[in-house]
Amino acid sequence: MTVPSDPPLPNSKKTVQLGHGSGGILMHRLLEQLILPALDNEALRQGHDSAVLKLPGEPNARLAFTTDSYVVKPRFFPGGDIGTLAVNGTVNDLAMAGARPLWLSAGLILEEGLPMDELERVLASVKKAAAAAGVDVVTGDTKVVDRGHGDGLYINTSGIGIIEYDLAISPQSIQPGDVILLSGDIGSHGICILAEREKLDFETTIKSDTAALHRSVLAMIEAGLPLHCLRDLTRGGLASALKELTLASKLSAEIRECDIPVELQVKGACELLGLDPLYVANEGRMIVILPKDAVKPALEILSKFPDTAHSRAIGAIGAGNSGQVALKSTLGTLRVVEMLPGEQLPRIC
Amino acid sequence: MTVPSDPPLPNSKKTVQLGHGSGGILMHRLLEQLILPALDNEALRQGHDSAVLKLPGEPNARLAFTTDSYVVKPRFFPGGDIGTLAVNGTVNDLAMAGARPLWLSAGLILEEGLPMDELERVLASVKKAAAAAGVDVVTGDTKVVDRGHGDGLYINTSGIGIIEYDLAISPQSIQPGDVILLSGDIGSHGICILAEREKLDFETTIKSDTAALHRSVLAMIEAGLPLHCLRDLTRGGLASALKELTLASKLSAEIRECDIPVELQVKGACELLGLDPLYVANEGRMIVILPKDAVKPALEILSKFPDTAHSRAIGAIGAGNSGQVALKSTLGTLRVVEMLPGEQLPRIC
Repeated sequence: MTVPSDPPLPNSKKTVQLGHGSGGILMHRLLEQLILPALDNEALRQGHDSAVLKLPGEPNARLAFTTDSYVVKPRFFPGGDIGTLAVNGTVNDLAMAGARPLWLSAGLILEEGLPMDELERVLASVKKAAAAAGVDVVTGDTKVVDRGHGDGLYINTSGIGIIEYDLAISPQSIQPGDVILLSGDIGSHGICILAEREKLDFETTIKSDTAALHRSVLAMIEAGLPLHCLRDLTRGGLASALKELTLASKLSAEIRECDIPVELQVKGACELLGLDPLYVANEGRMIVILPKDAVKPALEILSKFPDTAHSRAIGAIGAGNSGQVALKSTLGTLRVVEMLPGEQLPRIC
Repeated sequence: MTVPSDPPLPNSKKTVQLGHGSGGILMHRLLEQLILPALDNEALRQGHDSAVLKLPGEPNARLAFTTDSYVVKPRFFPGGDIGTLAVNGTVNDLAMAGARPLWLSAGLILEEGLPMDELERVLASVKKAAAAAGVDVVTGDTKVVDRGHGDGLYINTSGIGIIEYDLAISPQSIQPGDVILLSGDIGSHGICILAEREKLDFETTIKSDTAALHRSVLAMIEAGLPLHCLRDLTRGGLASALKELTLASKLSAEIRECDIPVELQVKGACELLGLDPLYVANEGRMIVILPKDAVKPALEILSKFPDTAHSRAIGAIGAGNSGQVALKSTLGTLRVVEMLPGEQLPRIC
């Protein structure tokens, strides 16, 4: 995947910026120009949320393997906490490869002075979310850093899943004419975190959408639906996810604003704060890209699961205009959707 | 595993201390009283460096899965850097389960302001160490935290290995009469980090012992040696590792001071600083516990690999005195080795 008109590689005088972690252009440049070349190998180059791996000597076993660190601030928010995110986020990364999530690891980096009862609460959330998702945290590690050199608690979860079906779910499988489904309303997680962090008062509390999506995905796969690509919408939101997928597949996408649900409160907060909900982070939403004739059965299946009950088709994949994402506004005009240059909301997951 | 005479569970007024991350009693209490009960499951209760997992539907495939976060300070030191440790440490955790390391993940937590060329150097070390160990970093994640809320760079690596032999390598397999082999001299890593951090000048530079040990381990397994248990000596050093294993196996151990190599410079530094080399961290050393009649062939194999060339028998496992480790001093006296109560050297890995 390449981002257009890259500037020269950062040199020794350059430093890491907050925007390097936010799912936008800066982050993609860091990945493309420094991290991927440094660690170069085929699995990493797949550009997917999980690596898909063949187990030597076991020709039928394909594994998905993924990792994510969670640094969300604040640690506790309406609808969940850093522990909930750490489980659901990694479960979702496995699900996006079509894998059945099996095992998680938990690597804790604790700051000296963290109240022990906060750690207890976070671990209880990890346990609860893991039980709900049907996975076990099977291995762990605890490090402590001195006061002032951390931020209370960071969690890394890595995950292993098994791929039991012969589908190539990846950006490279996307075809012109494919339909894009969105699994629910967007922007709640990002606005929830922002409201909590900045102590903004809204009429009702905006809750994070954090959820594990693997059951919806596996139900579609088990029904034999030919899924082409899946992507959960996290940092950078719906816009960045679509931009990444069109760049990777060298195709284009057109989405319709009127079909993209945004809760009234979230929309109001975005207008107030000058944010575009297309770029706001989610933690329990995904897009599903699949052939047109699979749309109806897919929506039927998705409607049966609470976290994907409000799924709908929001647009389609087009040939040509490699990497372009266009939004058809409610007024009927077309707007080109770009990747976010820098930082909209830091540390939302 | 239990640590004797535990005080009551930390309550809400208690906070995380540096010692909770150092491999001693505090860390074991945190694990036993808070983390393990919170996440309770069978794999986690194995108390091993890696979880050993059976892949559903693939009866012959056993996987090892492990995770470690690296927060070493300073990031660069003689003999390696945080990237070298992050690869070798996780490779070793897999090797200690008798697994062939296959894949690693890398989760980076970067602090805003980290010089880009430092990130580049660390990634080059990750690549170099991974290539040397024959593993690939197949999946990754990058998060950025704001200035003052991190410490430049933390790395989590998780690892997957495959267990190709039918050996139960675990504390539960240790038998009375088993011999304890040590793979080389102890204490170099901890003293190297301390010297670098505190700008201590020694006559010659003390280098970290960081090394990947899987080839030595796999060669012993392939030769059919009935290994009972393996443990790499990291935080808490040789003393803590033996203490953990005797507690888990409900047996005792006696080791001979005269057979435990400590480099002259390391010994001098320990005396100067009031440290006991038995508790100083290593990053490329392990103990091998195996039946007496396997000792000779094991030492022959270990001698062929540069990083384990100086392996030797240092003691034996005894029945009774559950959990006790005794050190026979050079003067012939017996000293009971306890687990370190708190913190000797923070952030050495």
